[in-house]
Amino acid sequence: MSKDPTVTDPNLYTVVFENDRVRVLEYRDRPGDRTHPHSHPDSVMYTLGSFTRRLQAGDREVELQLEAGHVRWLDAQEHAGENIGETPTHALFIELKDAPRDPADAEALGPA
Amino acid sequence: MSKDPTVTDPNLYTVVFENDRVRVLEYRDRPGDRTHPHSHPDSVMYTLGSFTRRLQAGDREVELQLEAGHVRWLDAQEHAGENIGETPTHALFIELKDAPRDPADAEALGPA
Repeated sequence: MSKDPTVTDPNLYTVVFENDRVRVLEYRDRPGDRTHPHSHPDSVMYTLGSFTRRLQAGDREVELQLEAGHVRWLDAQEHAGENIGETPTHALFIELKDAPRDPADAEALGPA
Repeated sequence: MSKDPTVTDPNLYTVVFENDRVRVLEYRDRPGDRTHPHSHPDSVMYTLGSFTRRLQAGDREVELQLEAGHVRWLDAQEHAGENIGETPTHALFIELKDAPRDPADAEALGPA
């Protein structure tokens, strides 16, 4: 069974950008919402709202209280999450895929 | 001379996170501000405000009008920028460094 969060919880995770190097997910839920167990590759998380969550993997649990407007690193992992606070969760996940290119080889000017 | 934007324009670019896979920069300026020529690796840009800029590289120029709350991809490149609008520029750059790890090897639960 796929552990891709866009498959396990398509109502909560939305793909907002994807190319060969990254996939960017937007996550939104409401208090009390839970995800199914799912997998994240190494990711940068950016909090668009303030929220409180419990993450669970096997017999381990952590509780997180995060403020809006912060960058956090997420090491690759599998977990399930639950919104245990009184505010929606709203966050971006920049999922990392692969290897770098040399800026000196580039033709681009500005964003794609 | 370094093309690192935190060296060329330390008053405009701030490192908000860095590890072996990414560096995250916050960019803030005011209308009329210009950057020195600098380099970006492959990066995800997230616009925290709406702004209008001109980017210049050699004899090429592009003008960008970007809305707040959008994800844009920036191919690795060198350029200089100028805020040609009437609003501050406020954006995050998630700069990509290297190769992925397998979520199955991971010990982490939640963000670092």
